[in-house]
Parts: sequence; structure tokens; C-alpha cells
Amino acid sequence: MKIVVLKFGGTSVGSIQRIKNVAKISISYLKKNYKIIVVSSAMKGETNKLVKLTKQLSNNFLPAEYDSILATGEQVASALIAGRLNDQGYLSRSWLGWQVPIFTHGKYSHSRIVNINKKNILKFLKSGGIPVIAGFQGINSDNRVTTIGRGGSDASAIMLAKFFKAEKCIIYTDVDGVYTTDPNVVPKAKKIQKISYEEMLEMASLGAKVMQPHSIQDARLNRIDIEVKSSFKNLPGSIITKRKNVSSKNIIRGVSFTKNDAKITLVGVKDRPGVAATIFEPLFKNSINVDMVVQNISSKKKETDLTFTIKNEDLLKTKKLIRKNKKIKFNNILIDEKVSKVSIVGVGMITTPGVTFRMFNALAKKNINILVISTSEIKISVLIDRKNLKKAVDVLHKEFKLDI
Amino acid sequence: MKIVVLKFGGTSVGSIQRIKNVAKISISYLKKNYKIIVVSSAMKGETNKLVKLTKQLSNNFLPAEYDSILATGEQVASALIAGRLNDQGYLSRSWLGWQVPIFTHGKYSHSRIVNINKKNILKFLKSGGIPVIAGFQGINSDNRVTTIGRGGSDASAIMLAKFFKAEKCIIYTDVDGVYTTDPNVVPKAKKIQKISYEEMLEMASLGAKVMQPHSIQDARLNRIDIEVKSSFKNLPGSIITKRKNVSSKNIIRGVSFTKNDAKITLVGVKDRPGVAATIFEPLFKNSINVDMVVQNISSKKKETDLTFTIKNEDLLKTKKLIRKNKKIKFNNILIDEKVSKVSIVGVGMITTPGVTFRMFNALAKKNINILVISTSEIKISVLIDRKNLKKAVDVLHKEFKLDI
Repeated sequence: MKIVVLKFGGTSVGSIQRIKNVAKISISYLKKNYKIIVVSSAMKGETNKLVKLTKQLSNNFLPAEYDSILATGEQVASALIAGRLNDQGYLSRSWLGWQVPIFTHGKYSHSRIVNINKKNILKFLKSGGIPVIAGFQGINSDNRVTTIGRGGSDASAIMLAKFFKAEKCIIYTDVDGVYTTDPNVVPKAKKIQKISYEEMLEMASLGAKVMQPHSIQDARLNRIDIEVKSSFKNLPGSIITKRKNVSSKNIIRGVSFTKNDAKITLVGVKDRPGVAATIFEPLFKNSINVDMVVQNISSKKKETDLTFTIKNEDLLKTKKLIRKNKKIKFNNILIDEKVSKVSIVGVGMITTPGVTFRMFNALAKKNINILVISTSEIKISVLIDRKNLKKAVDVLHKEFKLDI
Repeated sequence: MKIVVLKFGGTSVGSIQRIKNVAKISISYLKKNYKIIVVSSAMKGETNKLVKLTKQLSNNFLPAEYDSILATGEQVASALIAGRLNDQGYLSRSWLGWQVPIFTHGKYSHSRIVNINKKNILKFLKSGGIPVIAGFQGINSDNRVTTIGRGGSDASAIMLAKFFKAEKCIIYTDVDGVYTTDPNVVPKAKKIQKISYEEMLEMASLGAKVMQPHSIQDARLNRIDIEVKSSFKNLPGSIITKRKNVSSKNIIRGVSFTKNDAKITLVGVKDRPGVAATIFEPLFKNSINVDMVVQNISSKKKETDLTFTIKNEDLLKTKKLIRKNKKIKFNNILIDEKVSKVSIVGVGMITTPGVTFRMFNALAKKNINILVISTSEIKISVLIDRKNLKKAVDVLHKEFKLDI
């Protein structure tokens, strides 16, 4: 059985007209002799509307009830698609998480799919039906509705592709693929035909618009090839796949960047073992994500300067947490709210020397000052003044021949 | 265990503020040492919004998918209530139809509750928890979501009261009880303290605003006392109960009326056995409810005049069905779209002679002409010109001492 999993995001099911289009796309695969499993997100805006209701009642709304509320968005969308397919003369029915069932483990709102009962869906596929599965949801061992985090319908699609050994898993969304960089910043940005899971993860700042890092990781762990494409244009998308399937013609796959970083420097921190942990512990506990970290040797003895970056939106909370942290002493706190992180990403850099030099040199030629540097196996990131962002992305995109 | 079932209608859960109020009302019963089962409708407007989505896709939307879509309204509301109760420090959780489970038979959208698994809810009640059950929904033998018709949350509450042998079943709504007639028409209308199921059913034209006839019938068959009261005012409501519990101080319990009837007369119908059935069959098949029927002996031989009433909204469809019905012959069709049915209702009339005379006499004194008459054991209805409606209701309300 040649199975394809088609996942439609919130924008792709965002109106009645678009739901009709989803049915049309699904039918086109049926005509290519595929057995189709459709996975649906909630209609755009619905999930946020539901979240708002819970927030109005409590800032700490009971997670089990929260999940039962949020799961209704996908329940509605999946039944609308199945209803439309029937109306068009095709056998179809919706399946909710508990009906499949899709079994999950872990905390409410952040559950992970651990098993999928295939029996009834296989039978339905064999009878020529199109099952439409409500994404984002499952049940736990208490027989309660669980959800698998924002963007979780992608994870549903990937796990369905895994359990049903699907030939393809196509993520239909409102962008038509993954680009070498943001086309709004660099008009010469090109659609990437194939990208490895690892590169896609490192491109998260761009890629998040396409897929959540969690879902990419799920696909990587389960070796599921993903095609990301637009439900509005009939064009090839981008394929996210194993590293060995990806051409290494280009050393660098893309240039990603952030626009909402803030840099904090604690000047004159009393240097003793574990001081960084003491500073970051309350931040981690409050879900503040610390990104780049540099510890400089200060001029004065027994003191150090600690620099790190966070999201702008966490700045107030971070300052408050640092100030009320009695365990650390420092002389001064410096804050720069106008910084950006620019990264070059590519598996090619592992085997190609000199990439770091080319990056720094290209930036230097444009008089762009590097504030902080961090590297991973397939990524080099630099922190720069936000005013230099466009210039930096431009020059790097050109330097690594992504324009052509 | 002293159990009370509290059912909250769409208006009663229609906003965040009102959901807070629902939690407050529920807690007040806990403090009176009741074990509480809460049943929730969907937030006002939600069900209509969902129906509209399906209608935009198909006029004939697949019923199984339709039910899965509509059931989400109650899913959201019940979880919001449970979340609020937890936030206020009370143990509570929501239960969906499939989680209880609530087993239903029959067609989608018109299913009937046949069994309720009590085990988990009883355990939860014993542990001091407040279960909040999503009304209007259940599952069928295919493990699919079913709904039990508009207003079906009342039926859910009544069946829960039956299976759990509840001491009380309270329907919280946006009216504060059942009145002797519409207070908007007769300002002297009084709230009825106790009314029998049968009277309530006959008052349907008024009572429908309070409870669906189906649900009243469910309560009657299962001998469940219902209290209807407002969730906005802390006032006693009206109790719907067995006939023997109802005082018969008044012969007549109330005056009900309709505003949207149409009268059709087929003049000179060829009279032969079964002619009425021939005329009505296509109407029944098209769900057109024929109410009052009178067959007059016509002046001409072998011919009869047939008069009947339907709802105004069915008029066009009815005319069309009659015209294309080849099996009947008649000379003329007369239509009066401006008629109203006025009824007096009361179990007292069974044992009291002369009620009919008093009714007709009272109307005659006001020069109100009676067009059609129909009677049942506990109701007398007359069809009149709509322009006389207020005058008729006024005089009957006074005649049968409902003003005092």
C-alpha cells in the first residue's frame, strides 16, 4: 500500500474556501493511486481564541482541561474536511485522538505520541476511504485528552507517517518551502530543494515559520522525509531529509537571523566556581531561554564579566530575577536591546576549512562589528548591532553563493 | 449520597463572567452537603456558529461529522467550568460523552441516551469532586460522537438525574421559571410554582423557551422532578413534576399561544376514503407539522372542505407540495397567514365541567371569532385572527383567575 500523509496547517484550513481546497488537494493524490491519511490543524485563529478563554478564567488554568478545550479546534476542522470529501462523493471520516487511539505520554500540553493503533484506519484505507485525523491530540493512560504542544499537528503527521510506513509526509502550509534566507530581507533568497534535518534545526529562527524544531527532531529521529509546500500554489516545496540525501554543492545552506535579541552584560561578577549556574538557574526555572553566553576575564582580579543574550520579551523579567538573586554580586549591569544574531548554516562546513574566516572577513569588509560569537558543528552565529542586520545577511548570502 | 444535577444553558455559560457565576452556584450546593453533577451546554452562539460552518460546505452535511463538530461547544464549556472550579480550590474535572461513557441509540443528531456508565463519576463524587459533564453528547456502538438534538443538554441532565438517582435536577436558564402566560403580553402573568409534566407539554408554545418538549417527556417518563430557574437571579423557579404533586386550586394552569400559524383551506376536495392521508402524507415526509385539522361537510355533494394549520415558515413548501400532488383534486385553495392559536391548559379541567363554555363565552363577549377548535384532555385550543391575540389572552387569563 502506497501511503501518503497530508498535513494541513491552520492557514490552509483557515476558511470554508480553503477547506474545499484541502479536499481538492487530497483527491488529487487519490487519483495518483495513493492511499491518503489527512491530518488537520485547527482553523487559523481558533486555538488562540480558546487559549484566551482559559486565560480570562485563570493564569494557571488546569492543564487537563486546557487540553480538552484546545483539542476542539482540530476536532472541528477534521470533521469539516471529512464532510466536504463526502459531499464531493468520496468516502471519508474524521478520527479524533481517542478514536484512533493515539496514545501519548508525558505532561498535558506537552505530551509525546508513543503509540498509534493502526487497525481501524488500515481497514478504512483498504476500503478506499480517506481518514482525516485530528492533529495535535491524543489520549493518555487516564483516558483523557492530551495535546502535544503548539505546532503539534506536524508531530501528529510525522508519527502517523512513521507508524503507517508512509512513502511521503507532506506538510501543507502558507509558505512554499524553506528559503536560503528571508526573501523579505534578501530578494535574491532561493527556495532550498533539499535540506538536512540538522540544517533545518539550526535554521530554526527562519524554520520556525515553517515547522517547529520539535517536529523536525521527531522527523529526524524517525527518518521520515518531509516535504513542506504551499496549499495555495501548486509548486514543488522543500524536502527535509537525511544528511546523505542532501547535495553538498553549497558549503552553506542558508543564512538565518533573529530580530528580537537583547544582550545583557553583568560587569564585575565575583568569580567563584558555579557563578554562571547561580545566575542562570532562576532564569531556566522561569522558562527564559538563554542563548549565547560569553564569560570574559575582567581587568580586576577575582572578577569576571558575563555576557549573555535572551529574547527581548524576557528582558524585564530577567532584570527582575537577577536583581532579586541574593547569591550573586556584581558591579554593574549593561543592557543592549538592539542586537541581532546572524547565523550561517550548512553541513558542508564540517569538511570545508576556512568558513569561519570567510564569514568574519566578509563582515569586516562591511565594517560590521562582531559582539559575540558562538559555533556548533554546522552553524556559526555572530551577534551584531541590529542596524547592521540587512547589510550582514546580504553580504553573507552573497559570500556563500546562495544568490545563484 | 444526596445528589443534585445542575444543568446550565447556553446563556448561563455565555461569557467568562457567567462561567464564574456557574462555579459560584455549584459551590453553593456543595456547601449544602450535596454531591453535585454539573451538566453544561455550549456557550451561547457557539452551536449556531458551528452549524453555519457545515452549511457553508454542504446543505446535506454528513451527520456523523456534523455531530462531532457540534459536540465541541459543550466540550469547551464543560472544561472551562471545571477549570474555574479548580482555580477556586475545588476538585473538579470535565467528562465528555465518550469518557463517561454516555451510550446513545438512534440516528446522528437525534440520538437518545440509553445507558450511562456510572462507575468513574461515582468514584469521583465520593472523593469530593465535582464532575462537569458535557451535555448534548454521547457515543454510539461505532464509538463515534453523537448528539441528542437541539436543547439536548436538558435530556443529558435528566438522564444523569435518573441514572444517579438524583434528589434534584435543576435546569438553570435565562428565564426564572414558567409563567401563566407570556409576561410580555400580559403584565399580570404569574410565575407558576408547580406544574405537571402534561401541562408543561401542552404549554409547549410558551414552554419551549424554557425546555424542549422532548426533554419534558424524558422527565415525565422517568419521573424526574425538574426545577427551572434563572442563573442570574437567586429566586425560586418553577417545579415540573408528577400530576399528583400539583395543587389543583386553579382549574387552568396557564394560557399559551402561537404567533406564527397559517391556515390553509382546500375547498371542494373530492371526498373519498383516505383523502386526508393523501393530502398530508407528502407534508409529513417533508417534516411539515400539521397542527389543527378540520374537515367540513361542503355544500356540494361528494365534496368536502379541508382546513388545517401549519407554521408560517412552512407555507411556501406546503403550497408547492399540494400543487404537485397529482392524487388530489380540489376547486380552490384559501390561505390565511394571520392567525394565532390560543390555548388554555390545566389538569383541573378534567374534573371541572363547563370550562369549554367559559372559554368560548369569554371570547364571544369580546367579539373574538373562533375559526377552528381542537381539544385534548387537559387543553382547549382555538384559532383566531392574530389581531385579536392580545385581547384573547388577556380575557382568558382573567376569566380563569390567573391574575391573582
